[in-house]
Amino acid sequence: MTRRIVVIGGDATGMSAANTALRHTAADGGEAPEVIVLERGHYTSYSACGIPYWIAGEVSDRDDLVARTPEQHREAGIDVRMRTEATAVDVEKQVVSFRALDGDGSEGELEYDDLVFATGATPVYPPLDGIDAAGIHGVQSLEQGEQIVKDLDASQARRAVVVGAGYIGVEMAEAMLTRGLEVTVVDRAPQPFTQVDPDLGAIVRTAMEDMGITVLTGTSVEGFDTREDGRVAAVRTGDGAVAADIVVIGLGVAPNVSLAQEAGLTVGRSGGLVTDVRMRCVGHENVWAGGDCVEVHHRLSQQGVAIALGTHANKHGRIIGTNLAGGYGTFPGVIGTAISKVCSLEIGRTGLGENEARAAGYGFVTATIESSNVAGYMPGAEMMTVKVIAEERSGRLLGAQIVGRANSAKRIDVFATAIWNGMGLEEMTFMDLSYAPPFSPTWDAVLVAARKGAKAVQDDIPRSPV
Amino acid sequence: MTRRIVVIGGDATGMSAANTALRHTAADGGEAPEVIVLERGHYTSYSACGIPYWIAGEVSDRDDLVARTPEQHREAGIDVRMRTEATAVDVEKQVVSFRALDGDGSEGELEYDDLVFATGATPVYPPLDGIDAAGIHGVQSLEQGEQIVKDLDASQARRAVVVGAGYIGVEMAEAMLTRGLEVTVVDRAPQPFTQVDPDLGAIVRTAMEDMGITVLTGTSVEGFDTREDGRVAAVRTGDGAVAADIVVIGLGVAPNVSLAQEAGLTVGRSGGLVTDVRMRCVGHENVWAGGDCVEVHHRLSQQGVAIALGTHANKHGRIIGTNLAGGYGTFPGVIGTAISKVCSLEIGRTGLGENEARAAGYGFVTATIESSNVAGYMPGAEMMTVKVIAEERSGRLLGAQIVGRANSAKRIDVFATAIWNGMGLEEMTFMDLSYAPPFSPTWDAVLVAARKGAKAVQDDIPRSPV
Repeated sequence: MTRRIVVIGGDATGMSAANTALRHTAADGGEAPEVIVLERGHYTSYSACGIPYWIAGEVSDRDDLVARTPEQHREAGIDVRMRTEATAVDVEKQVVSFRALDGDGSEGELEYDDLVFATGATPVYPPLDGIDAAGIHGVQSLEQGEQIVKDLDASQARRAVVVGAGYIGVEMAEAMLTRGLEVTVVDRAPQPFTQVDPDLGAIVRTAMEDMGITVLTGTSVEGFDTREDGRVAAVRTGDGAVAADIVVIGLGVAPNVSLAQEAGLTVGRSGGLVTDVRMRCVGHENVWAGGDCVEVHHRLSQQGVAIALGTHANKHGRIIGTNLAGGYGTFPGVIGTAISKVCSLEIGRTGLGENEARAAGYGFVTATIESSNVAGYMPGAEMMTVKVIAEERSGRLLGAQIVGRANSAKRIDVFATAIWNGMGLEEMTFMDLSYAPPFSPTWDAVLVAARKGAKAVQDDIPRSPV
Repeated sequence: MTRRIVVIGGDATGMSAANTALRHTAADGGEAPEVIVLERGHYTSYSACGIPYWIAGEVSDRDDLVARTPEQHREAGIDVRMRTEATAVDVEKQVVSFRALDGDGSEGELEYDDLVFATGATPVYPPLDGIDAAGIHGVQSLEQGEQIVKDLDASQARRAVVVGAGYIGVEMAEAMLTRGLEVTVVDRAPQPFTQVDPDLGAIVRTAMEDMGITVLTGTSVEGFDTREDGRVAAVRTGDGAVAADIVVIGLGVAPNVSLAQEAGLTVGRSGGLVTDVRMRCVGHENVWAGGDCVEVHHRLSQQGVAIALGTHANKHGRIIGTNLAGGYGTFPGVIGTAISKVCSLEIGRTGLGENEARAAGYGFVTATIESSNVAGYMPGAEMMTVKVIAEERSGRLLGAQIVGRANSAKRIDVFATAIWNGMGLEEMTFMDLSYAPPFSPTWDAVLVAARKGAKAVQDDIPRSPV
């Protein structure tokens, strides 16, 4: 009988796994497996990360965010079943139960030889008083993005409040600002963008305020007031009410593991499914998982972490597909690299922040520098701030953060590559990085930061008496 | 007696060495040495790399290119002697002879405890018929840049010919184009920009032609025709005459080692002075050299190479200064990283090109990919071409080249960092590089190139019969 692979979830990980499995099997001349994908939404393979830019109007068409439609996947030989929700998994019998979300709500069962959990993440949506009011939106799925766009057009909203000042929060703040709304961002943390340390977070705050965004930090949201017609009128916070015509909840996401957990799969302390390096669920030969629903190894903290990010999800899908096709693929873990922007402000980070380094048990020193993005005399020259965190004594790079303007934050990849290789700051000081006036000063910001960090490491070493 | 350091050459290496030596000595509480710098030109510490952008009008003021004036250096305690040419060095007696280039042309001698050769490079200026005609310019020094600007303003030149299509050639082509001239670039090589392989050079050519630049390759320059008033009228080439109102010779530079060579210092096959890792001239305890006049170790080819580049020169200066102050600094060598642009076209390269890899004895495979600079659906999305060269069997990255538009070429630093660490392409495939739609596709171009390259390495390994 033809081998059957069932994939639960038709986004980055799921469709990439399905495609890779089919393609690799074909390349090896093997018999093609039957690949069935169950997707409860209306879309496959779309870029959730692109939603803010579509809402902002920078991406004109929703369909631009869809890398491949169900029809395109079907043409590639994948049996994609849309609006179909997996309701239970029996890993002993190797059976998935499902239910149609449209039409007659019919149910059914599918036997599988291999199963892939690609169930993604669930947005954090706190059960606050009034959160179901009209005008309050999540921003995790393309469907939700669609609702925001429609609501903005229909409601003539003027004042937007974004709850949460992390990645999605600042990106949605930018989107609302771009659409001409007055924007307030509320977060209970003491700074916006806690993915960088407080010193750099302060720079982000100032920049956001300079853009005209009201940034309320250390502020908890307690509920929502509504108008007579039931639409949101204000966000009630510990510091008073903030008037709002539209509210976006951008509090991040948590791994969606309920189905897997009910099936008895192992969930780690981070809340994500635990897999081996080949992305196989521990203890289960023929169950795989990847993307936002798993936890991955952090190469520096040595802990499992759940990081919802499209690039990881795509990598996992490819690795799972390779293994399903009889190939060999392993995921080497992450180091927490991320990048974002708020209008013209770019933010990059990799490795561990101070709190993370401390929590992992590291002793460390830090150094922060300012550097120009291009030669100081060139048009477009603007300063960026770069912070490095290095292990004490060894000088090994543990983390780096960049806040700057155009052509600054992508440099984080150089630090990421250095961390990946366990480089010390001293060793980085004279690295052969590219230089020309339109691209960097003679000493690239990376080198300047490495040099100051290396000195901090040296200065930190206690001098024992001779 | 106060220790005396004499530095020959007051640009990047020389002034950086002088400054670092003084600063480090002061930091250590030692007695400050006397530091004398002999500079034959009118300027110190200027950015030769910035000259094309000044000529283009993008940098408004010549003085912007001067990082520090002689006066500023003097305030820092350095005895800078401008328009003073070192004419001979006696390394046994530890004496430098010099001559004033202005005024009475007086001569003198200086004893030294330590000597630094920072004599830079000499532009290649072939002794062609007519090359001394008015309107024909080099572009190595600030003085020459000044002459070009004045000539452009005074002559109302309309047609520019740039001889040489390397870094300085394409940058000067851009400058002339920006100033509204008709531009022709002539090079005897079969492609522009031989710093990248022919396949990428072809992309550069097309882009330059699309910008309106006439690119004549495989074309040797034989001489220059002049008008009655002695000004250049045309460039005579193997393929006929090219009318020209102004000509820029951008054929690169060669290490300026004549003085050092007369003093008996060792010159390598590359034409540059040979130093140890601390930038000390081999065989001479108290003679140092750095910048464009030395050869450096190429970490991949394992050969000495002479690479004239401001970032290397600055690093050398700092290392020499550190060592002069009793500290410990070593130069780890280079891997040939470079970046340039022609108008909107960005070009980056690191490691070895195909010919260089072959000359070094490597067996290798290559892979070339096209990738978007940002997510394909974002505004500003444009394709770039990335080529990787990897050692056969091991898959170790030997080189990478990028040709693209905005926000593409600086990625070369990620490859440079990978090469620095001896990474293999397989290992790079799943590296944790930053992703967000305004900064890259879900798979950054670096990862896509690594993946295709890793596959090429695998496919290249001969399968022995079982």
